[in-house]
Amino acid sequence: MDNFTFHNPTRIIFGKESVGQIGGVIKEAGGKRVLLVAGGGSIRKNGVYDTVARSLKEAGLTWVEAWGVRPNPVLAKAREIIALAQKEKVDAVLAVGGGSVIDTAKSVAAGVFLQDLWAAFERQVEVTTALPIFVVLTMSGTGSEMDPLAVLTHEADVKKWVLRSPALFPVASIIDPTVQQSLPWHQTVNGAIDAMTHVMEFYFLGTWEETTMALDESLMRTIIKMTHLLQQNPLGYEARANLAWAASLALNGLTGVGLREGDFATHRLETAMSAVFPEIAHGAGLGVLFPAWILYMKDYNPATFARWAREVWEAGSVEEGVARMRLTFQGWDAPVTLEELGVSEADIPAIVAAALKVGILGRLKELTPGDLSAILRLAL
Amino acid sequence: MDNFTFHNPTRIIFGKESVGQIGGVIKEAGGKRVLLVAGGGSIRKNGVYDTVARSLKEAGLTWVEAWGVRPNPVLAKAREIIALAQKEKVDAVLAVGGGSVIDTAKSVAAGVFLQDLWAAFERQVEVTTALPIFVVLTMSGTGSEMDPLAVLTHEADVKKWVLRSPALFPVASIIDPTVQQSLPWHQTVNGAIDAMTHVMEFYFLGTWEETTMALDESLMRTIIKMTHLLQQNPLGYEARANLAWAASLALNGLTGVGLREGDFATHRLETAMSAVFPEIAHGAGLGVLFPAWILYMKDYNPATFARWAREVWEAGSVEEGVARMRLTFQGWDAPVTLEELGVSEADIPAIVAAALKVGILGRLKELTPGDLSAILRLAL
Repeated sequence: MDNFTFHNPTRIIFGKESVGQIGGVIKEAGGKRVLLVAGGGSIRKNGVYDTVARSLKEAGLTWVEAWGVRPNPVLAKAREIIALAQKEKVDAVLAVGGGSVIDTAKSVAAGVFLQDLWAAFERQVEVTTALPIFVVLTMSGTGSEMDPLAVLTHEADVKKWVLRSPALFPVASIIDPTVQQSLPWHQTVNGAIDAMTHVMEFYFLGTWEETTMALDESLMRTIIKMTHLLQQNPLGYEARANLAWAASLALNGLTGVGLREGDFATHRLETAMSAVFPEIAHGAGLGVLFPAWILYMKDYNPATFARWAREVWEAGSVEEGVARMRLTFQGWDAPVTLEELGVSEADIPAIVAAALKVGILGRLKELTPGDLSAILRLAL
Repeated sequence: MDNFTFHNPTRIIFGKESVGQIGGVIKEAGGKRVLLVAGGGSIRKNGVYDTVARSLKEAGLTWVEAWGVRPNPVLAKAREIIALAQKEKVDAVLAVGGGSVIDTAKSVAAGVFLQDLWAAFERQVEVTTALPIFVVLTMSGTGSEMDPLAVLTHEADVKKWVLRSPALFPVASIIDPTVQQSLPWHQTVNGAIDAMTHVMEFYFLGTWEETTMALDESLMRTIIKMTHLLQQNPLGYEARANLAWAASLALNGLTGVGLREGDFATHRLETAMSAVFPEIAHGAGLGVLFPAWILYMKDYNPATFARWAREVWEAGSVEEGVARMRLTFQGWDAPVTLEELGVSEADIPAIVAAALKVGILGRLKELTPGDLSAILRLAL
């Protein structure tokens, strides 16, 4: 087990009817003037916006709203909101939405203190401070509600990159699973697959990190079980709640304890792919790429890949484990081939080129352009 | 799954050669004059004290030392150290030791702001502030390095009680597993049993908290596996490290998410027993009482007790699971009967009387004096 530091200061407020606490939570943390960041308007339909607005008002807070954050959120939008935040002199940022909204809100919270936000994504400057970040989560999967990360796409440069800083941990995140009962099925599935791959990106580096690896296996099994249950009954509260909490745990630091920083090659490859094809949902892309990555990498840590097949899929071999994973994803109506995503062999060079911009990819094995192409071909 | 709030702000610095970071960590948090709390002197023998002293010095900190905290730590000692802390105007408290030392240090950190420390244990006053608490852990098991609790014994009143406050979370805890390689075997075992029972106190309340329950099972299995490995090779770093981290996770809040506040009846019964018999080590007492509690309670949540037997012990019934647990503890040279602890049937009324002082005991079932006696008799 490698030496590690674990520190996750985010407060999670979880459960039914919890959204209305947001005003009090921000006020207690010293916020007065809030920037509310949101997406396309689903929170108007499901009542979350009304509850949030009422709560902010009752707490005596004023706020300004920035709408229109899209899936695979872009730098241009974050910059636009930074200008608004600066003009309006907000002292707290509230994301009401899923991963894209949260990541944009985090980028803004840091960006108001930066000359150039993208320079931080390029690691030319370090993010050491940010406005306090609050979250009302409407879709589980990315883990952004309890992690120190933000992902944005620089459209012109075809880069979908990650910013990491302890300043990006939300102060508090509210997770009311009932809010997610109205999600379209494919969004639930994309979130589940995203969360599962967060665990796997760490897990496969494991050898002697028994505490972490056993915890990781318990989370993977739970995510699979709860998604099955939700497929049978999308309104089931317990399955929704357990899936939501498992997704938060999947990337809050615990799943990677002692495992260095994980091997996020598949995540980077997927973000490269969705930088090229912005219409691909992150979870869907991961569900296609991860099985291929496992098949390509299985000999680089064979005991752990075999353990994964056995413990998560009750399979006798890695190949069988991957086959069961693909069958499971298919059973959830998720794509398992690049073809289903509208990506063909001819697109592989562009995706590889986008991936290589990140720098070194892969920790279990440093992936060459040839490796990346081979993994993508295994996913065709 | 019940609604919950999860917040654990403690920073864990974990690994080989990490003890020497303590000075820098305290300095960075703003500490200048430190109260160092310690036990009977084992940290002088294993070099930990020298490393800590050098680190404090190098960070430019001054400090005052309070030695002599005993297992099952007492109020009188905490009061004595509070007087020292006030006289010396310390601004940070550093525990260098195991659970008893940490709990005393936490009590002092809160106590310097209180008229009467014990009134807080009696819940007559609330603890809202404390000096910043830092830990160098020398024995895993109690979880105090990452929890908001402190346990002290009021000797005259025969009360061993718990204080809980968010102010008691350590700011930072350093866990170097190599420090624990020199522990006597029975201390390793007592720590492992203590940690396992922390998980169980929550787990048996579970019904639909799949994420938490699966995580709890993974921790119980890991604790058992790692203790077996340490019995074969006490110097094995990986087993020691995994056991240490599992013990921290066992009571840092995660294992009880959605499970209200757990059913700590066995813990309270054990602390009552060791209030009457202060020579009984906490972990040893728990190893004796917990199997009896399970046998007595198994019909109050039968599906979960059966699941525990199956998932943790690969047993076909609760009785078989308990038998395997007792065999495991015996295999570790831990006591499994009250007789081995020097407690006889004639002592049961005194233990029950001490337990009843706490107030209501048990959440799965509110335990009557008759229930408590019956559980103790099952442990004879």
